[in-house]
Amino acid sequence: MKALLLVAHGSRRESSNDEIRALTAQIRAARCRFDLVEHAFLEMAEPDIAASGGRLAAAGATDIVVLPYFLAAGKHLRADIPAEVAQLEAQHPAVRFTLAPHLGAAANMLRLIHEHLDAL
Amino acid sequence: MKALLLVAHGSRRESSNDEIRALTAQIRAARCRFDLVEHAFLEMAEPDIAASGGRLAAAGATDIVVLPYFLAAGKHLRADIPAEVAQLEAQHPAVRFTLAPHLGAAANMLRLIHEHLDAL
Repeated sequence: MKALLLVAHGSRRESSNDEIRALTAQIRAARCRFDLVEHAFLEMAEPDIAASGGRLAAAGATDIVVLPYFLAAGKHLRADIPAEVAQLEAQHPAVRFTLAPHLGAAANMLRLIHEHLDAL
Repeated sequence: MKALLLVAHGSRRESSNDEIRALTAQIRAARCRFDLVEHAFLEMAEPDIAASGGRLAAAGATDIVVLPYFLAAGKHLRADIPAEVAQLEAQHPAVRFTLAPHLGAAANMLRLIHEHLDAL
């Protein structure tokens, strides 16, 4: 069973975290190739990566793609998230985890920016 | 003269900041509807918003669109960036500044995510 775990930074503003929750619901509703879709926050909000990864594993996920919802590859992306994924791997040895490139590396990012600006 | 100012968070990792510099060059090369395209970092890297906004004004920009290259609307987006733009407006009264919605609010974000995941 394939699962997607969207990992966002997390904010002290709950309205910001709610954006991530809404996006997760949209991805889930879009009937993508993932049977399960969850989100997690790296810091400042719940659930964290360990909790959401554990929930997906408990729900029967065998392949979990971790997508960092980050635009630039700073310390969080290069160090913190890989460390969290390594912990998940250690705790759930029967599950295959794949750390996807961060969203900022998406091939069509430039197009999105132009479309966003054209809509102003 | 129309200008775009892409505002990213900024990182202690220069490789992360270089991603923003490369993206800015790509936007500029794409011959969008902006005559001038610059980037700035909110913190931890140079140039800052005041410096880049000032450079655009000195280059003759009369309309400057500020695009927050952020995915979620946390404190940086709701408080810090508007405060910086207000300062720019005070310093350059002849220039019209428009604070665009952050990139995370882009209408086609969901499509980008699906395309990014399909390319794995």
